[in-house]
Amino acid sequence: MPKISVKGHNMPESPIRKLVPYAEEAKKRGTRVYHLNIGQPDIKTPQVALEAVKNNSIEVLAYARSEGSETYRKKLASYYRRHDIDVSESDIIVTTGGSEALLFTLGSITDFGDQIIIPEPFYANYNGFSVANGIEVVPIESNIENGFALPPIEAFEEKITEKTKAILICNPGNPTGYLYSEEEIVKLKNLVLKHDLFLIADEVYREFVYDGIRHHSVMSQEGLENHAIMIDSVSKRYSMCGARIGCIVSKNPEVIQTALKYAQARLSSPTFALMASEAALETPQSYFDDVIHEYDERRKVLINALKEIKNVRVSSPKGAFYCIAELPVEDADDFAQWMLEKFEDEGETVMVAPASGFYSTPGSGKNQIRIAYVLNKESLLRSVELLRLALDQYPG
Amino acid sequence: MPKISVKGHNMPESPIRKLVPYAEEAKKRGTRVYHLNIGQPDIKTPQVALEAVKNNSIEVLAYARSEGSETYRKKLASYYRRHDIDVSESDIIVTTGGSEALLFTLGSITDFGDQIIIPEPFYANYNGFSVANGIEVVPIESNIENGFALPPIEAFEEKITEKTKAILICNPGNPTGYLYSEEEIVKLKNLVLKHDLFLIADEVYREFVYDGIRHHSVMSQEGLENHAIMIDSVSKRYSMCGARIGCIVSKNPEVIQTALKYAQARLSSPTFALMASEAALETPQSYFDDVIHEYDERRKVLINALKEIKNVRVSSPKGAFYCIAELPVEDADDFAQWMLEKFEDEGETVMVAPASGFYSTPGSGKNQIRIAYVLNKESLLRSVELLRLALDQYPG
Repeated sequence: MPKISVKGHNMPESPIRKLVPYAEEAKKRGTRVYHLNIGQPDIKTPQVALEAVKNNSIEVLAYARSEGSETYRKKLASYYRRHDIDVSESDIIVTTGGSEALLFTLGSITDFGDQIIIPEPFYANYNGFSVANGIEVVPIESNIENGFALPPIEAFEEKITEKTKAILICNPGNPTGYLYSEEEIVKLKNLVLKHDLFLIADEVYREFVYDGIRHHSVMSQEGLENHAIMIDSVSKRYSMCGARIGCIVSKNPEVIQTALKYAQARLSSPTFALMASEAALETPQSYFDDVIHEYDERRKVLINALKEIKNVRVSSPKGAFYCIAELPVEDADDFAQWMLEKFEDEGETVMVAPASGFYSTPGSGKNQIRIAYVLNKESLLRSVELLRLALDQYPG
Repeated sequence: MPKISVKGHNMPESPIRKLVPYAEEAKKRGTRVYHLNIGQPDIKTPQVALEAVKNNSIEVLAYARSEGSETYRKKLASYYRRHDIDVSESDIIVTTGGSEALLFTLGSITDFGDQIIIPEPFYANYNGFSVANGIEVVPIESNIENGFALPPIEAFEEKITEKTKAILICNPGNPTGYLYSEEEIVKLKNLVLKHDLFLIADEVYREFVYDGIRHHSVMSQEGLENHAIMIDSVSKRYSMCGARIGCIVSKNPEVIQTALKYAQARLSSPTFALMASEAALETPQSYFDDVIHEYDERRKVLINALKEIKNVRVSSPKGAFYCIAELPVEDADDFAQWMLEKFEDEGETVMVAPASGFYSTPGSGKNQIRIAYVLNKESLLRSVELLRLALDQYPG
C-alpha cells in the first residue's frame, strides 16, 4: 500500500474537530449542546449581500478573474481607505477565504524549512498552513496575566534566525480577543524593518473592537509599505463564513505579483460568493452598529459571568468575539470531553474549545479554553452556568 | 526590501495569461477576438442548479462541513455508481474546485523534493501545484502522431526513482483530448502496483467522450483500491466553472483521512456553490445528450476545417473539448502574440493557447497550439478561417 507523506502525517487535526464525535453522541442521547466552541456567528448576513445572489441573472456560471474583478477590488480599496488604509486595486488579490490568502502569502514568501514567528496562543489553522508549506512556526508565548498583550519585543528578536521570513499576528486576536495598540504595532514595525522581515497581519476582525478603542492596521504604518501584508476576509465582517471570499493586501508589488501566480493556478474564486461579497460592501453602517453593540453586550455578560466562577480566570477581550478562560482543571481537553460525554444538567451541556490546540509549545495552555461569544445573551448565561456546574462535578 | 521565496519566484505564469494584455489591446483597437484559448464553455449551466441558488432561504451564510455534507457526498457516490465507480460517501472529500482536490492530494502523498510522473503535454496548472508543493514533475512525452496515446509503459518505468510517489494522468485529456483505453489504464495499474505508487487520474471531463467509446475510470479497476485517487469537478460537467466545487475520491482510507485534515484547515468550501452542485446532480440526461451532441458537432467541424489548412497537423480528440494542432511556424508563442498584435481580417482575429506551456520539457511543443472548441460552430469556422489567413500572412 503506497504511503501518505510525512507532511500529510504531520498535518494537525483541528483541535475543535476532535471533540465533534462526542458532541454528536451527546445530541443522539437527546442532550442539548451549547456551542461556544466555534467562530460561526448567529448574526444574520446583510440582506443586500443575500439579495444580490438571489436576484442574479447568470446563465453560464463562468470563472471569475483570478485576482478578483477590477470593480470589486476598486470597491475594496475604497472600503480600506475609509479605514485609514491607503491602498488601490492593484495592491489587492482576492482569494477564496482568508485561509487561501494566508496560504498564498506563505507560498509567496517562504521556502521549505523557513520559519515564521507567531505570538501564541494563535489561530490553530496557522499550524496547518505552515505544515502544508513545509515551514516551521516559532511561537512566542503571550500571557493571560496581561490579557495576551504583545510579548516583549526582545523575545521576538531572540528568535530571529536567517530562516525567519515573517512575523504573523492576528489583530484583533483569535483566540485571545486582544487588540494590539499602535505602540505595539510600531515596535513590530521597527523590528521587521531592522531585520528585513515581512509583517503579516490577519485583520479579519477589524470591525469588532470595543470600549471605544481604535484598530491600528499594519497597512497604515508609514515606512512599512514593502514589509506589511494584510490578510482579510468577508467571513466575520458580514457573517458570511460560507462565502469563502478573502484577500491579500500589500503595497509590495513582488508579493502581489507572486500571489497572483498562485491565484491563476487555481483559476478563480467562487463566482456567487464574489457577487455577495461585492454587494456586502453596500451594507449600511447601522448594520455594523447593531452587530457590534450586540457583541459588546454579549462580551460583558460573558466576562462578568465567568469572573463570578470561583478559580476561573478570564482575559478581558477588546476585540473579535473570543476570550480565553483559565479553569481550575489540569487538562481542559479532558474536561471539555467529559462535559460532552458524562455531564448534563436538565438535558443540557456545553461545548468549548480546549486552548491547547492554539499553542504550538507542547504543554502550554493545558488548563485554558477558548470561548466564542457567538450565541445570544440568554444562551451565553446558561452556558456559563453549565460550565460552573460542570466544574463543580468534574472528578478530574 | 524583504524577498519573495524561491518557490514563489518559480511559480509558473499561466501560459494563457501571458497573452491576455495583447488580447485586451486588440479589443481596445476595436478588433473582435475569437477565444479558442480558454476552457470556459459557452454552454448554459443547468437550470436546476441555478434555481437552487436563486431560491435559497439562507439567513446566515454559514460554513459548510469541511469534507462536504453527508447528503451531498451520498448523492455523489450514487452518481459515481451510475458510472461504474463503486464508492461510498466516506471515500469522498468535497473540495473547492478540482484545483484544490489536486493540491490536497499532492499535499497528502508527497514531501518536499518528491517526484510525480506526468505524460506531457499536460494541463499547465499541474506545474503550479507541483511548485507550490515543492515537488518535481517528471514528464514523459506523448506524440501527436498517435493522437497523444499513452507512451510506452517502459518509458514510465525508466523514470521511476525512490522519490517517485505517483503517476498523474488526465483522462480524457486536457490539452490533448485523448481518451485512455482500458488496456492503457491496465498497463498503468500494473506499473503502480509493481512499484507501489499512487495513480492519480483527473477525470473532470468524464462525460465528454465521443464516437461511442466508453470512459474507463481508474476507480473501476479491481485491485487498484489503495493506489487510485480520482480528481473531479463540477466545472465542465455542468458548465459551472465559477462554482469552484470538486472532490477527491479514493478507496484508500489514509488518503481520505489526510485530505480531510487539509480540508479542515481551510474550514469549508463555498456554501452557495455547494447548493448549486448538489442540485446539479438532478440534471436530466437530456441536458448531457444535447451538450455532448453539440461538442461532438463542434469537434467534427473544427477538426475537418483544421485538416484543410495546408501544413497543419491536428490530433483527433476522442474526449474533452480540446485539440492540439501543429502549425507550420517555428514559435507558436510568437505566432499567437502576432495574431493579437498585428493581424486582423475584417476587424477580427483569434486567440489560441500556445502549447509550449503544456509541456515541461524545455523546447517541446513549440510549434503547437491548443484549441478549445467552446464556441458555436459558426464562430469555430470563422476562427479557423482567421487562423488560415494569419498563417498565410505571418512573416515569422
